Amino acid sequence: MKFKFVQAASCKKAGAGSGLRLEFCNGTGCRMRTQSKFFTLAEPFTCRAGGTIPEVTVAYETYGTLNEDASNAILVFHALSGSQHAAGICESVPEAGPFWTEECVPGWWEEFIGPGRALNTDKFFIICANYLGGCYGTTGPSSLHPDDGTPYGSRFPFVKMEDVVRTQALLLDHLGIETLHAVTGPSVGGMLCLTFATLFPERVNVVLPLGTGARLTSLTRLHNFEQITAIESDQNFKGGDYYDGSRPDSGLMLARMIAHKTYVSLETMESRARGELVQPREGYSFYKLGHQIESYMFHHGQKFVNRFDANTYLRIMAMWQRFNLRRMLGAQHLTEVFERCRHQRYMIFTIDTDVCFYPGEQAELEAILKEAGVRCLRITVHSEKGHDSFLLEPDLFTPHIRYTLESDW
Amino acid sequence: MKFKFVQAASCKKAGAGSGLRLEFCNGTGCRMRTQSKFFTLAEPFTCRAGGTIPEVTVAYETYGTLNEDASNAILVFHALSGSQHAAGICESVPEAGPFWTEECVPGWWEEFIGPGRALNTDKFFIICANYLGGCYGTTGPSSLHPDDGTPYGSRFPFVKMEDVVRTQALLLDHLGIETLHAVTGPSVGGMLCLTFATLFPERVNVVLPLGTGARLTSLTRLHNFEQITAIESDQNFKGGDYYDGSRPDSGLMLARMIAHKTYVSLETMESRARGELVQPREGYSFYKLGHQIESYMFHHGQKFVNRFDANTYLRIMAMWQRFNLRRMLGAQHLTEVFERCRHQRYMIFTIDTDVCFYPGEQAELEAILKEAGVRCLRITVHSEKGHDSFLLEPDLFTPHIRYTLESDW
Repeated sequence: MKFKFVQAASCKKAGAGSGLRLEFCNGTGCRMRTQSKFFTLAEPFTCRAGGTIPEVTVAYETYGTLNEDASNAILVFHALSGSQHAAGICESVPEAGPFWTEECVPGWWEEFIGPGRALNTDKFFIICANYLGGCYGTTGPSSLHPDDGTPYGSRFPFVKMEDVVRTQALLLDHLGIETLHAVTGPSVGGMLCLTFATLFPERVNVVLPLGTGARLTSLTRLHNFEQITAIESDQNFKGGDYYDGSRPDSGLMLARMIAHKTYVSLETMESRARGELVQPREGYSFYKLGHQIESYMFHHGQKFVNRFDANTYLRIMAMWQRFNLRRMLGAQHLTEVFERCRHQRYMIFTIDTDVCFYPGEQAELEAILKEAGVRCLRITVHSEKGHDSFLLEPDLFTPHIRYTLESDW
Repeated sequence: MKFKFVQAASCKKAGAGSGLRLEFCNGTGCRMRTQSKFFTLAEPFTCRAGGTIPEVTVAYETYGTLNEDASNAILVFHALSGSQHAAGICESVPEAGPFWTEECVPGWWEEFIGPGRALNTDKFFIICANYLGGCYGTTGPSSLHPDDGTPYGSRFPFVKMEDVVRTQALLLDHLGIETLHAVTGPSVGGMLCLTFATLFPERVNVVLPLGTGARLTSLTRLHNFEQITAIESDQNFKGGDYYDGSRPDSGLMLARMIAHKTYVSLETMESRARGELVQPREGYSFYKLGHQIESYMFHHGQKFVNRFDANTYLRIMAMWQRFNLRRMLGAQHLTEVFERCRHQRYMIFTIDTDVCFYPGEQAELEAILKEAGVRCLRITVHSEKGHDSFLLEPDLFTPHIRYTLESDW
């Protein structure tokens, strides 16, 4: 993807009103140029499961303008491998070290954020921040420990969903936002969106979870456990203290392969994999790849390890495995959790071909909300693309997102 | 499972007519005592994909008695991790080295083989042999190379389904069996059963594939590729030459975990995993297991590595990845493959909850057979147990197996 600088005024498709002046244009459309911002917590941060991080910086981006009474803010939680960079073009984030590759340059939710888009920057102030424990600028295992200037590695604590949410609530305080108009997020970001909405119910009006669930299924637990085992088994992992040597690339690659098959429909993968059968230069001594889908998967996994940190991956997997709203709030059952959310409205999206978060999971969330007396709507979008539809098919989601954000059903 | 010796005559449930005199009895029923036999091929064996094995020995067991015109023989192909020991009790197979553990002692298809059972030993002569490349007595990568007396390891060639089938056809020659009454097998054994029936159509009358498919699906290909990658990535694998050092246990364990979730229904796994949450003593430095299903899966994987060889596992995975009946016979399409099987009868079993070989795969096989003009019946058994139903629920399969074997529809 090649973009060149143009003046915002010279392109009608540009993200006007975003407060950004320079944009990238590839001839067919312009993208605003964005820059990550950083907020450092005033105090050390103690994680729920134990362990204190002396200094936490949160990397974030914003799009649009916060209105005077700070009532138009929308918080977006990215998915597992995303970042604070949700929209526009961001060529570099020096704080992300080697992980900010070419793949990171376009915003991960670009087609959903901008003037007139699902999250309309003419009306709303959009915030997206990198998870605590992340590798794209928020303090994480690859960050340098202030005591000795070497990476945290194994010293970085176990992060829970509520820790991520609490750091982002502190960011909102810093930005002068008491109550969010909405919180949204797809996939793992959807679970964080539910965590935020239930941990700080008074701070949220509208909740928009996409392709997610209110609790873990056994299949997800097993998929995640396989991925954790793949990384932990890599000889280079060394408990997480690998930054001065080889990285646990083969473990992270296998983890990504295991996960990736749940993101993209098999049909999509088959059609993407119709190219040449390429034998990997390393990694296999006995086995010779026999089908394009194998080399597609290998290539995909290998590309991923260049842009992601295994320790961050492991922390997100671990927080996912511990996702439990009921336990977080000491409730007897999930319905009780959502009874405190009766002032909120939920717009839930199901993707019919999703095999990462199955349609039944959102149906269950809907049933719980209805039992708890919370207003909610749910739609199923029909896609050939599987879970990743939330990244690729804005037309399936935009009308209902806009309708929910801009009216008061 | 504790059994003690009794005289066959003292127990009514014993496998009378099997030609075996001593049996094990645990008070509720008796099992015949069996012993593996060995047949060494007269000549070196050249594998289809290249590579010659100087001396191949096939480990096998038989049950029942071959009739005078050798017309009552049934060949059973075991599944991925099974062995020649399909029925009865076999306490040791010295040729299997360390891999013959307590888990191997009861026959893997005990409930299906015996007097009055699905494969009725009062009428039929049942043969089951360990795959070429296996680790239970048939020559495989852990066998000693005659040249230097050290294990084959990486020197053991790539094995294809037709190689396994050809070694077993040579065993039939040795036993004086020209034509089989039937060939059967579940899972990977089902693919071998189809390979036999199409490679040697004139040698088979009845074909009984259980929970299998006529070709690979993309999902299976990806699951298998993950397992291959897990083993190849293990630092101890060393291209397969690990017998004088540590074995690639963590890779094999992860492979087994990845596979196991497709064998057992999630509900069954959940109910089996209700015990204590046990933290593994090794393998995880950062992650602490958080749910019983994780420790169930870990325990299951760990138990498996004691009884199976990673090189054998890899060869079976690789032959599965290359399973292609059409290509094997140089046919234009699968229908053409089965057109040579018009004298055969197929009884196909689908397990409704099977997520290793999905019901649609047997439906496809049925459709191909019908198009090819081959007689076939298919039934779907309804089980809560998933793929492994073929091991656990003889009542669901026995009547149709007996009916097909003992009558001529």
